[in-house]
Amino acid sequence: MPPPGDLSGPMDPLSVAGRLDRVRAALAARQDDGIRPNALLVTTTANLRWLTGFTGSAGVLLVGPERAVLATDGRYRTQAAEQLADSGVVDQVDLSIGGVVAQREALVAGAAGATAVGLEAGDVTWSAATTWESVLDPLVVVATQGIVEGLRVVKDDDEVARMERAAAIADAALGSVLHLLAGVGDGAVLTESAFAAALDHAMRLGGAEDRAFETIVASGENSAKPHARPGPRVIRVGDPVVVDFGATYDGYRSDMTRTFCVGGAPTGELATVFDVVASSQAAGVAAVAPGVAAGDVDKACRDRIAEAGWAERFEHGTGHGVGLDIHEGPAVGAGSTAILQLGTVVTVEPGVYLPAVGGVRIEDTLVVTATGSRPLTRFPKEVAV
Amino acid sequence: MPPPGDLSGPMDPLSVAGRLDRVRAALAARQDDGIRPNALLVTTTANLRWLTGFTGSAGVLLVGPERAVLATDGRYRTQAAEQLADSGVVDQVDLSIGGVVAQREALVAGAAGATAVGLEAGDVTWSAATTWESVLDPLVVVATQGIVEGLRVVKDDDEVARMERAAAIADAALGSVLHLLAGVGDGAVLTESAFAAALDHAMRLGGAEDRAFETIVASGENSAKPHARPGPRVIRVGDPVVVDFGATYDGYRSDMTRTFCVGGAPTGELATVFDVVASSQAAGVAAVAPGVAAGDVDKACRDRIAEAGWAERFEHGTGHGVGLDIHEGPAVGAGSTAILQLGTVVTVEPGVYLPAVGGVRIEDTLVVTATGSRPLTRFPKEVAV
Repeated sequence: MPPPGDLSGPMDPLSVAGRLDRVRAALAARQDDGIRPNALLVTTTANLRWLTGFTGSAGVLLVGPERAVLATDGRYRTQAAEQLADSGVVDQVDLSIGGVVAQREALVAGAAGATAVGLEAGDVTWSAATTWESVLDPLVVVATQGIVEGLRVVKDDDEVARMERAAAIADAALGSVLHLLAGVGDGAVLTESAFAAALDHAMRLGGAEDRAFETIVASGENSAKPHARPGPRVIRVGDPVVVDFGATYDGYRSDMTRTFCVGGAPTGELATVFDVVASSQAAGVAAVAPGVAAGDVDKACRDRIAEAGWAERFEHGTGHGVGLDIHEGPAVGAGSTAILQLGTVVTVEPGVYLPAVGGVRIEDTLVVTATGSRPLTRFPKEVAV
Repeated sequence: MPPPGDLSGPMDPLSVAGRLDRVRAALAARQDDGIRPNALLVTTTANLRWLTGFTGSAGVLLVGPERAVLATDGRYRTQAAEQLADSGVVDQVDLSIGGVVAQREALVAGAAGATAVGLEAGDVTWSAATTWESVLDPLVVVATQGIVEGLRVVKDDDEVARMERAAAIADAALGSVLHLLAGVGDGAVLTESAFAAALDHAMRLGGAEDRAFETIVASGENSAKPHARPGPRVIRVGDPVVVDFGATYDGYRSDMTRTFCVGGAPTGELATVFDVVASSQAAGVAAVAPGVAAGDVDKACRDRIAEAGWAERFEHGTGHGVGLDIHEGPAVGAGSTAILQLGTVVTVEPGVYLPAVGGVRIEDTLVVTATGSRPLTRFPKEVAV
């Protein structure tokens, strides 16, 4: 195993400077025959954080041509004031006082100079869209998709450093609890739930602010369910055990899957499944490079599995972008036309799931580099424990 | 402290029988002057689980007048087949094959006999609503709100039993880690993050399938931020420490807040804050009874705090329903008109937050009984640790 990343050293501060202007530029560059919005209403917590550094769990940011207004509720009054103190570009509105309707004027002031406001149609509920249309009237509200998410696809060095730290914490945590799986071979009783709890706890103790998503530990027949949740099943010798997990560090996430075989190397058809998935994953990793279509990475993985006759047993996409969200752009699936760019971070995670035999998935999180990619997740891929 | 609930005994199986028909009845009883939907498209995981027992993280259920169709993707093919084996009423559609557009006919077959389909406008994104209008055409899609959520407000005995188990696990977990807080008085170094991690781990070891939400541990000046996230702050003697957390058991959640004072009883204005919040919370609990408007519970809490001159320092609502979701109906806030019913489960959680002094919140989860309420969360409210 390569030496882990530095888990405790100082890290350059993350700067959000200039991002509001990048949103304005993205709006101006948007290809659409209809009305062109020159303001954007941002509602997701990840987008808010990326644009302003605000880390509260609720808020709305209206980015106008000249100003930007952040609206939160009373729960975050103190928190937001602290976090935005250095931003200099954002006025605050307190939605505790009468909600968006009462604060309409202050909100709309943020859109001074706007002719139409984009509202990210994949992020707001249908009923919220109706409310915003009413609150922002007479400004026209236009359905947009992925304006901020499109900018977030390319990570800067400080973002990659956080994801690398998250991945290193996760690697170290898995290393610290793997003896529990090995102990099953010596007769210890270990449930999926207990192993997941131990892994999550190890990540927290290791410096993660949280797990990146609900950890999957799927053993034996459960391993054939790609998104099984850890349960009371007792892990047995001979089981494949899919462990899919990640850490969060300063908001940024990692994502890795390893599949182990308890008590020794797999045998029979299960051994073939392990080999095919490993080969598929390596092919996918090798395909990652700047300028490559995400769909070609998927195809590289899928072809190997198809050659083995299990095309229909690879039941999900090959991967996804990772960052402030565990699932973000670009999707890495069949026919994905997104072009990988320098600084894009994606997972490559093929799997084969045979109900009568078991399932195997292997996943790394990779950052696209000038010459290909660099893995952020580096735990060894040895199967036997 | 009263004896904890039984943390390991068997539990009656949860039955979802008859719930699809209750949805049909709720649709028929809906008061609206517009087009009346006699089918409903259900998209949230909690509603899917409540209606069918399906526990996957993605799916769509179309409840028609005569049939019901559950659509999931390949990740859940095996899982859903198992979980729905006993339901007898649900056909399955695999969305892996071309998505909702390709599966249009199979989906629409679930709505046989329908004239219009309700789509829960607070649960689907604006863009999803547009897609569904196209997929279901020529059926008319009508925006509805809270059809299933309205039914979920009243819990049956088996649901309450699960929440009581979750609460008992959480109580026991807090009891098992409280010595860490007490240790601060003896010179131990403890961060908010470390205490939160220990508490979460104790819940998992105690039988919780997960925490109910991201645990809040807010100490010292952070306690004045109602939704602070646990961070690297070292807890000090004299700090108020707000601990807001819960467990999940078989999908059902608990929610409790206790605020401790480290190293002994609070003094000065902080002591008054503790007293006022305790009095407010007791008043709110005493107000809970069947037939009472939720807003009256809020008023009971708010009046006590206003008497102390801190009306504006109680910056959030008094509570919320709890169940499969951590926040569900009814809201318990100023002017809430929802009437508490037998079997409704709500939190009562007033707080006062003084930036220069600290914050205190006290919360219990209660089930409405014939004579008032019964707390599911039972950890003592002693302040000094």
